[in-house]
Amino acid sequence: MQYFSEDSSAEVVIQQYKNCKNKRLKKIMESAINHIHEFVKEVEPTQEEWMFMIDYLTKTGQKCDSKRQEFILLSDVLGISALVDTINNRKTLNATESTVLGPFHVQNAPKKDMGANINYDGKGEPAFIYGSVSDTEGKPISGANIDVWQANEDGFYDIQQPDVQPEMNLRGIFTTSEDGKYWFKSVKPKFYSIPTDGPVGDMIFATGRHPNRPAHLHYIVSAPGYKSVVTHVFVRGSEYLDSDAVFGVKDSLISEYVKIDDQEKAKELNFKAPYYELQFDFILDKT
Amino acid sequence: MQYFSEDSSAEVVIQQYKNCKNKRLKKIMESAINHIHEFVKEVEPTQEEWMFMIDYLTKTGQKCDSKRQEFILLSDVLGISALVDTINNRKTLNATESTVLGPFHVQNAPKKDMGANINYDGKGEPAFIYGSVSDTEGKPISGANIDVWQANEDGFYDIQQPDVQPEMNLRGIFTTSEDGKYWFKSVKPKFYSIPTDGPVGDMIFATGRHPNRPAHLHYIVSAPGYKSVVTHVFVRGSEYLDSDAVFGVKDSLISEYVKIDDQEKAKELNFKAPYYELQFDFILDKT
Repeated sequence: MQYFSEDSSAEVVIQQYKNCKNKRLKKIMESAINHIHEFVKEVEPTQEEWMFMIDYLTKTGQKCDSKRQEFILLSDVLGISALVDTINNRKTLNATESTVLGPFHVQNAPKKDMGANINYDGKGEPAFIYGSVSDTEGKPISGANIDVWQANEDGFYDIQQPDVQPEMNLRGIFTTSEDGKYWFKSVKPKFYSIPTDGPVGDMIFATGRHPNRPAHLHYIVSAPGYKSVVTHVFVRGSEYLDSDAVFGVKDSLISEYVKIDDQEKAKELNFKAPYYELQFDFILDKT
Repeated sequence: MQYFSEDSSAEVVIQQYKNCKNKRLKKIMESAINHIHEFVKEVEPTQEEWMFMIDYLTKTGQKCDSKRQEFILLSDVLGISALVDTINNRKTLNATESTVLGPFHVQNAPKKDMGANINYDGKGEPAFIYGSVSDTEGKPISGANIDVWQANEDGFYDIQQPDVQPEMNLRGIFTTSEDGKYWFKSVKPKFYSIPTDGPVGDMIFATGRHPNRPAHLHYIVSAPGYKSVVTHVFVRGSEYLDSDAVFGVKDSLISEYVKIDDQEKAKELNFKAPYYELQFDFILDKT
């Protein structure tokens, strides 16, 4: 029998999991225990620092409610969400890369007719967004669902401002036509800050980081027989592209919002010039 | 500029902490990020497993209130509290070893006259506890504070059962006499379960562990000019000595509650035979 000691600590704790019947859970616990003990041995926290960490995690849990998930936000700003996403979506062939879902997706966004304008509050610089969905061999996928959402001109999603923005502002689900094409109207996204009024914000500021995400448009593209892709399209040239607070940026996901200063073309879209055009084509892997 | 990728993940996240002015905080964040990313790469959680972990931590935070600290309990059952304690109290010379504080200490325990009985509910097997406090050279320390607390016969501390146990049952602070001695009356401790009605209990049972702690008596011994020691005395022969749910047991802290079946001796203590005697001597390091 070996009692707990500094040298044997992880080993002694893991020994208590010897009867765990769920082999996957056992592996996860063993790995977690090994790494937490290594962390503690590396930084040698004082009792006060340990208590600070306990308090921090407690406050993070207590900041969560039906509209706020501070532990996901903590996972996001530590790059854990991005890593889990990357591991679970290792790119195969030439399929579109995924990135983090983020906390602002809703399940019941409205289905929209192709070409609809999802900008209900009329703020911001108008944008025409279009592209295609095809398989890895270039064959168009018809009937693919394109679920899009983005923040408004002021950097907030509709569900963050229920008393300010129209319901379902800047959200919608489109379905690709026979030739795999999609198109709709919205605004050019702007960079914004993640919520900083909780423990995650405290950490961001205490460590000299910034809380900003580069401008982006969220997509979930799905079709029967294909792997869904949860991703963003980032605005080329946006601030913070090289320091996204939640590590979502990938090179292949940056695209140009092209400025169109042509009153005739604008008129056709019921816009005033100048406006922006974004093309983004999706490639889905078979399941 | 390097975007986030599976290979570079920890490096890219740590890069965001380059402006952290608090060097200690920077070191802690860097170490935490490295180890969390290593853990994720080792176990490759699915999105569902990741969400389960997020939910688990959230529930752990939300179980906490002014009387319950579930994150400390989680730290305890993962051996983290024991490790932090051990690191911060690396044994020097022959001083008494420390162990975990636990969540049941109170700040305002009553000061007691030497010899007082702290067993207010009259349950359990009576015990006479005595010993001495001295420095590492054997010189008695007079005026040392001996703060003791323990669970009752049913395995609960007074603050867990405010409607059942008398207030301050099985707690007290004694002060050593000129010759460094202390003595008081109590009951022989029994093993008990940590609280299992929260996320920590769920984990304990899901992994085939047991939630029990071997029988013990808590001590904080302090004196001006000496390092305080937070420790337990464990009952030799108790169940669970070799598998304490919170990893508090150390060989040097196990001691015999000697059974005394002598009616005359019992009478002197106002006990009925048989009763138990425990001797435990403390040695404090100079600060």
